[in-house]
Amino acid sequence: MEFLDGIWKKEVCDWEILMSNQILNQSVTVEGMIHSIRHMGDIAFVILRKREGLFQTVLENTKANVSIHDMKEGMAVRVRGVIQEEARAPHGREICITNAEILSAPAEPLPMAIDKWKLNTSLETKLNLRPIALRNMQERAKFKMQEALVRAFRDYLYTQGFTEIHTPKIGARGAEGGANMFRLSYFHKPAVLAQSPQFYKQMMVGVFERVFETGPVFRAEKHNTKRHLNEYTSLDLEMGYIDGFEELMAMETGYLQYAMELLAKEYGKELSILDITLPEVSKIPSVRFDKAKQLVAKKYDRRIRNPYDLEPEEEALIGRYFKEEYNADFVFVTHYPSKKRPFYAMDDPADEKFTLSFDLLFHGLEVTTGGQRIHDYHSLKEKIAARGMEEEGMEQYLDTFKYGMPPHGGLGIGLERLTMQLVGEDNVRETCLFPRDLNRLEP
Amino acid sequence: MEFLDGIWKKEVCDWEILMSNQILNQSVTVEGMIHSIRHMGDIAFVILRKREGLFQTVLENTKANVSIHDMKEGMAVRVRGVIQEEARAPHGREICITNAEILSAPAEPLPMAIDKWKLNTSLETKLNLRPIALRNMQERAKFKMQEALVRAFRDYLYTQGFTEIHTPKIGARGAEGGANMFRLSYFHKPAVLAQSPQFYKQMMVGVFERVFETGPVFRAEKHNTKRHLNEYTSLDLEMGYIDGFEELMAMETGYLQYAMELLAKEYGKELSILDITLPEVSKIPSVRFDKAKQLVAKKYDRRIRNPYDLEPEEEALIGRYFKEEYNADFVFVTHYPSKKRPFYAMDDPADEKFTLSFDLLFHGLEVTTGGQRIHDYHSLKEKIAARGMEEEGMEQYLDTFKYGMPPHGGLGIGLERLTMQLVGEDNVRETCLFPRDLNRLEP
Repeated sequence: MEFLDGIWKKEVCDWEILMSNQILNQSVTVEGMIHSIRHMGDIAFVILRKREGLFQTVLENTKANVSIHDMKEGMAVRVRGVIQEEARAPHGREICITNAEILSAPAEPLPMAIDKWKLNTSLETKLNLRPIALRNMQERAKFKMQEALVRAFRDYLYTQGFTEIHTPKIGARGAEGGANMFRLSYFHKPAVLAQSPQFYKQMMVGVFERVFETGPVFRAEKHNTKRHLNEYTSLDLEMGYIDGFEELMAMETGYLQYAMELLAKEYGKELSILDITLPEVSKIPSVRFDKAKQLVAKKYDRRIRNPYDLEPEEEALIGRYFKEEYNADFVFVTHYPSKKRPFYAMDDPADEKFTLSFDLLFHGLEVTTGGQRIHDYHSLKEKIAARGMEEEGMEQYLDTFKYGMPPHGGLGIGLERLTMQLVGEDNVRETCLFPRDLNRLEP
Repeated sequence: MEFLDGIWKKEVCDWEILMSNQILNQSVTVEGMIHSIRHMGDIAFVILRKREGLFQTVLENTKANVSIHDMKEGMAVRVRGVIQEEARAPHGREICITNAEILSAPAEPLPMAIDKWKLNTSLETKLNLRPIALRNMQERAKFKMQEALVRAFRDYLYTQGFTEIHTPKIGARGAEGGANMFRLSYFHKPAVLAQSPQFYKQMMVGVFERVFETGPVFRAEKHNTKRHLNEYTSLDLEMGYIDGFEELMAMETGYLQYAMELLAKEYGKELSILDITLPEVSKIPSVRFDKAKQLVAKKYDRRIRNPYDLEPEEEALIGRYFKEEYNADFVFVTHYPSKKRPFYAMDDPADEKFTLSFDLLFHGLEVTTGGQRIHDYHSLKEKIAARGMEEEGMEQYLDTFKYGMPPHGGLGIGLERLTMQLVGEDNVRETCLFPRDLNRLEP
């Protein structure tokens, strides 16, 4: 009988060893895809793309078992040769190929120059050829940054006593209400796709006190803007026994600090490829919604058209204001008007026209919505009635409150938007692997 | 201007401090939900449920600001009192309440006795009242175990050079084909919910070499069994430059070892609540599909009805065989018949009726399907044609191969099934927070 013991010896050389001094002047085997080839007569520089970065190899017709002309961009190869110091190579070293094995060959030449430092292509083309376009080093790096943001979210929350949950994406009704739900037939029953894990994460506060989920949410909004996606990844948390919604903002600040530390520590390569300066998160200013509107109206000589709404242009100006006045990249805007928040938001007892809630703006764009929720069963029912809503379909959500719930609140972060602002893109489709919008369902 | 600096001082006492000796005989504040009350005349034991576990407090009418009769199960409370050694209390200590504040009160008494060690309720009732039933300590503990399994998956794969990806759940067509897709209208275009991230994770191998995703998948299968869900969480990985499908099995073995270590190290409380002995994963046997069928046919005197299929009863017997013969909890079954695997599976060059693939059985239940994939563009097109399938809708998937792809393979693990086998449940609905099946769309 054969057994697997979890150990797999690979003949190929690890990146770390490849970068070490001990390996210099020794013969090594490496694998990778041919990212680009620079022909110099009888010699060619063959740049391999590996998951850790680019690596230079040199192919000389007389020294190798293959000819320069056998090598093509897009091939997956395994090469063997001595690794030598070479000051002009990216990592100060290169492999002089003696033996090359072609693992896989493309059927056609690449449709775009992915080896260019910056892809010189329209967004539309990039998205149509996404699996190819992402082979570009800058394109790829954005999604390593995105990984860090999700990873930090989970890791930080584990240290804070949170439990990870997985809630259903198909349900009988949506949490946020309204018309923007995708509908489907679920074994002949009407169903919708989850607009958010809102109801479920609240229900789970009664079980685990602190919960989080990182997963897809679906919004059938007919917005065709640079900041809207119809499917996106939401980083959600919900926590019980909060002292106030300010505690949620403190938790998010802690997360952002943790994320920036993780990026600085483990994603240096990507920060350098994208030439990114990490934003300031040691302290994040907080301003009331109505106050923020006044501040920008005054400074930028702008008339307040609707005291109960924040236009995208106003958000951008608030971001600008706090950058100029406090050198702040982020700003919490608190006490949003009740009529702009869902029924489960807790109104401010001091002024019920406003809620105990907040948005977080990052360089003038909303990346988070959060706040304290109503936890008392009767208050929740009253709010539903006052809004003229039906309880139908919400019985099990309401039951949770009927049998007791601690004071609680939470927030949701749009992962693609957060990534977009971090890497300085101006369209959220740039930071979604396979965006879904009004017109795009593929690839 | 106010600022958030990520620090939030709570008046309430941390669990760790609560468990320390330094705190004994001091006055502390704790919060929690009243899990149960034992009345003993003028004294009552009030057991608080906190996220870390249960904690005993004592309420004596003459010593506290509240009466025993003010306290009800399901309340969220904040209590203050001196913490004293008490050998009969769960953690050898209890708080003698001097001050209690009711943060939130239920509107009705709990509909089930969640404070029982084991919930004495039908699965149907448990699922109907899920947010309440999960307040039971054993029910809750299962999902902490589940958390460990996902967490270990990610953390282990990060150490192995994998990148986390997020792929769309709404698409123009499904990866696995067939009829079991949920269909919806996406802005008047026909769309389906993802049966798996298969195509996307393969496409991303050309970018990141090694990728993983943990997310929901949707199967409109009309199976009403104890092991099927119509929406479940899939732990998917895909890796390039594999030496063979055996390398994937080695990677999964490494993951399982990592997961069991994490469980032993950080989830001791839950292991003890559920009285679980962790399975043996130091080495996992591997047996060919046809050989496995012969072994159990011989040992258990069973006729092989179909040499190209594995019935659930046969899977169970294979599990039993390897437990009896090798004391193995897991077993890899390799070389599944081609006709049972999707078109992208790589056939065994030694015998094309079989594939370079595997399932992993855990106590006789399939918890993983994996294998090497076809990476050559022309071979893939030939296989599609040979199956009589259409390329329509797969253009962008095929393009990825047209422009070059390394040899690769991957696997998918059903999280709920893995959890179910680990905690010894016999119905997968027990280990899904909010299961979706043929008849269940709520809560």
